[in-house]
Amino acid sequence: MPEHDAVEVISAKRDQHELSDSQIDWVIDAYTRGDVADEQMSSLAMAILLNGMNRREIARWTAAMIASGERMDFSALSRPTADKHSTGGVGDKITLPLAPLVAACGVAVPQLSGRGLGHTGGTLDKLESIPGWRAALSNEEMFAQLESMGAVICAAGDGLAPADKKLYALRDVTGTVEAIPLIASSIMSKKIAEGTGALVLDVKVGTGAFMKDVASARELAETMVALGQDAGVHTVALLTDMSTPLGLTAGNAIEVQESVDVLAGGGPADVVELTLALAREMLIGAGRGDIDPAEVLASGRAMDAWKQMIRAQDGDPDAALPVARESHVVAAPASGVLTRLDAMAVGLAAWRLGAGRARKEDPVQAGAGVVWHARPGDTVTAGDPLFTLLTDDEHRFERALASLEGGYDIAAAGTPYEPSPLVIDRVG
Amino acid sequence: MPEHDAVEVISAKRDQHELSDSQIDWVIDAYTRGDVADEQMSSLAMAILLNGMNRREIARWTAAMIASGERMDFSALSRPTADKHSTGGVGDKITLPLAPLVAACGVAVPQLSGRGLGHTGGTLDKLESIPGWRAALSNEEMFAQLESMGAVICAAGDGLAPADKKLYALRDVTGTVEAIPLIASSIMSKKIAEGTGALVLDVKVGTGAFMKDVASARELAETMVALGQDAGVHTVALLTDMSTPLGLTAGNAIEVQESVDVLAGGGPADVVELTLALAREMLIGAGRGDIDPAEVLASGRAMDAWKQMIRAQDGDPDAALPVARESHVVAAPASGVLTRLDAMAVGLAAWRLGAGRARKEDPVQAGAGVVWHARPGDTVTAGDPLFTLLTDDEHRFERALASLEGGYDIAAAGTPYEPSPLVIDRVG
Repeated sequence: MPEHDAVEVISAKRDQHELSDSQIDWVIDAYTRGDVADEQMSSLAMAILLNGMNRREIARWTAAMIASGERMDFSALSRPTADKHSTGGVGDKITLPLAPLVAACGVAVPQLSGRGLGHTGGTLDKLESIPGWRAALSNEEMFAQLESMGAVICAAGDGLAPADKKLYALRDVTGTVEAIPLIASSIMSKKIAEGTGALVLDVKVGTGAFMKDVASARELAETMVALGQDAGVHTVALLTDMSTPLGLTAGNAIEVQESVDVLAGGGPADVVELTLALAREMLIGAGRGDIDPAEVLASGRAMDAWKQMIRAQDGDPDAALPVARESHVVAAPASGVLTRLDAMAVGLAAWRLGAGRARKEDPVQAGAGVVWHARPGDTVTAGDPLFTLLTDDEHRFERALASLEGGYDIAAAGTPYEPSPLVIDRVG
Repeated sequence: MPEHDAVEVISAKRDQHELSDSQIDWVIDAYTRGDVADEQMSSLAMAILLNGMNRREIARWTAAMIASGERMDFSALSRPTADKHSTGGVGDKITLPLAPLVAACGVAVPQLSGRGLGHTGGTLDKLESIPGWRAALSNEEMFAQLESMGAVICAAGDGLAPADKKLYALRDVTGTVEAIPLIASSIMSKKIAEGTGALVLDVKVGTGAFMKDVASARELAETMVALGQDAGVHTVALLTDMSTPLGLTAGNAIEVQESVDVLAGGGPADVVELTLALAREMLIGAGRGDIDPAEVLASGRAMDAWKQMIRAQDGDPDAALPVARESHVVAAPASGVLTRLDAMAVGLAAWRLGAGRARKEDPVQAGAGVVWHARPGDTVTAGDPLFTLLTDDEHRFERALASLEGGYDIAAAGTPYEPSPLVIDRVG
């Protein structure tokens, strides 16, 4: 590999030049080895954020991050594979019903997940509220479980894209998270290294999402779809609304309960709708577009797959879920129609109640979170419960209540409400 | 002081907002204390480089760097003070004749200097070629010398603007040197902290300078002049040519010799011209514009001041200067008129011969450097010496010769040569 130096690579991007393949390979490799220092990579990340990277640069950057670690290979499985990734939202428990549903349709779902940071929850945090369930599996356990019952949701090992792990932690403290080339390559390097055959991206748009407007969400989606397709992964993205939180709960155990409700044939309509929409895309990507996931859900086979999946990871799917020690009900201050429920306000409240963490080493509370008793378009009555706040620490209520203030609107009864679509667009 | 956090400050500049006074004070103080990490400051520096800072931000940034350390105060001296700063050029030995000349005119010159890095030489490196001379003085020695004979050239203490020292080292390795707000505040924080009453800036423009074009040099000059004036320092800048190296020598001992030639009433015309131009500005700034430095130079009093200044710092002004062990003569390849001599090519050659250093801990060779035997406009004869290269290490000639290739043009005899002005403009 030809030698470069960090200042040369940084200066090139600073001066709006394209980085060469060899510069990109060198800088990612040298950063992973520690030859490029954190203060050099953060300066380069800021230059990338402000000056951008073109498609070729992003593809090469992603490939270099994949090359920094191991790659998984599921080609020995007897089933096709499909994976889903969400860019993160409030009340987004979709992975929980989705993985067993798609597995019940005959497609293997190797869902390597993360823990939450900030106001959006983490899939592993939610599942860890199930007594006994464990997130850490060996590669052998993961393969065996995928072969036997088709779905696994577990922690991503340290071996996948270590350059991304290091860079992600750096971006988090240097104001360089918000760069579409870096977001796209971070997500796609992990997903491509995971070796899935098909990938569906749920790109959230709105106040509770990372991408606040459709244009930037579309740019991110298009970038990721191109990266996936270039790497031979059948990749599709749905742009979905995250102005309103998903379902009726944001937390850990309470989101597991809502997911189980969906698997049992009930649950909030929006959670069911998005689960089915993503399942359809995963099935198409895996070459099983002939199967109707709604039928499989109604048959109860998705619930069976859920229980098998939880048991395979030492969880008890029938055990009672943890309950928060303290609760506080917020009554509707007026009667009328709920016309707005802000995802960020709800996410922040859940986080402040203890459902999320501020630093990656913080614990989360299994029982904490927010339940809302109405969704936009619903009629509410003054004095009836609008929110229930849940936490183990009474002192957390005050700041959680503050974050809900101004987070919803109630209009006079009879005010027409025009629901916005949940699935905004499809890219791929 | 109100609390901020690093990501907030970085994000503000990244998103093209103005930084508040309180954000600037906080980030400089926290960086000096180590609470803001290098990787955060480098990301902020890149955002500043690409998004800029306005006059208010630059002034506050400079003030915060000054506040990070001690300030000197020369008001107890019986003479007015004036200082000069050059942004760095090839063959730029002007400080050496200038400081004793201005001192001989009755104005105190507290010249706190640095060592060279890269292709531009350092004043202290040059003076250290004088047997016995020492750069490190206590504040008491400096004051006593200024009071008794009026000129001191010494190393800046660690107490002045420590934030700048830390930031400068960081910028050097993170591709963030080339930011006018950061260059201006770096220079001016040290100069204002030094407590001089008047300041003349020699802003170099051309191939051998940091600023390659007049527009960016003027922007830097105007920024620095405004900073100085806001801080109550009488500040003026001259934009001077650095396409061609100054004088006939670039090195250490050989530049001391050329400076002594100037003090003795000889020396290259351009070195004399610039020394007198800067001396005039320093005298005007110090309220002694009635004195003609050309007269003082001709009188020999500047040479007397030089000898006193060197002796006061334990140097022997009459000792023989070190001579390089090896020399190599480059003959003119053709007869005609020398129409171009590139400052960067000469500077790089001198650096490669051992006159400069690549890393700040490297030693320099006292005798190394380049002598050119003609200046643009001079007639040269094929076969006559054009350059003499000097070094202690014979193996250095090859790379030095390579850097001179293409660094000069010889046109047919009689080709008209239009000299470009040495002093391009005056700001202030």
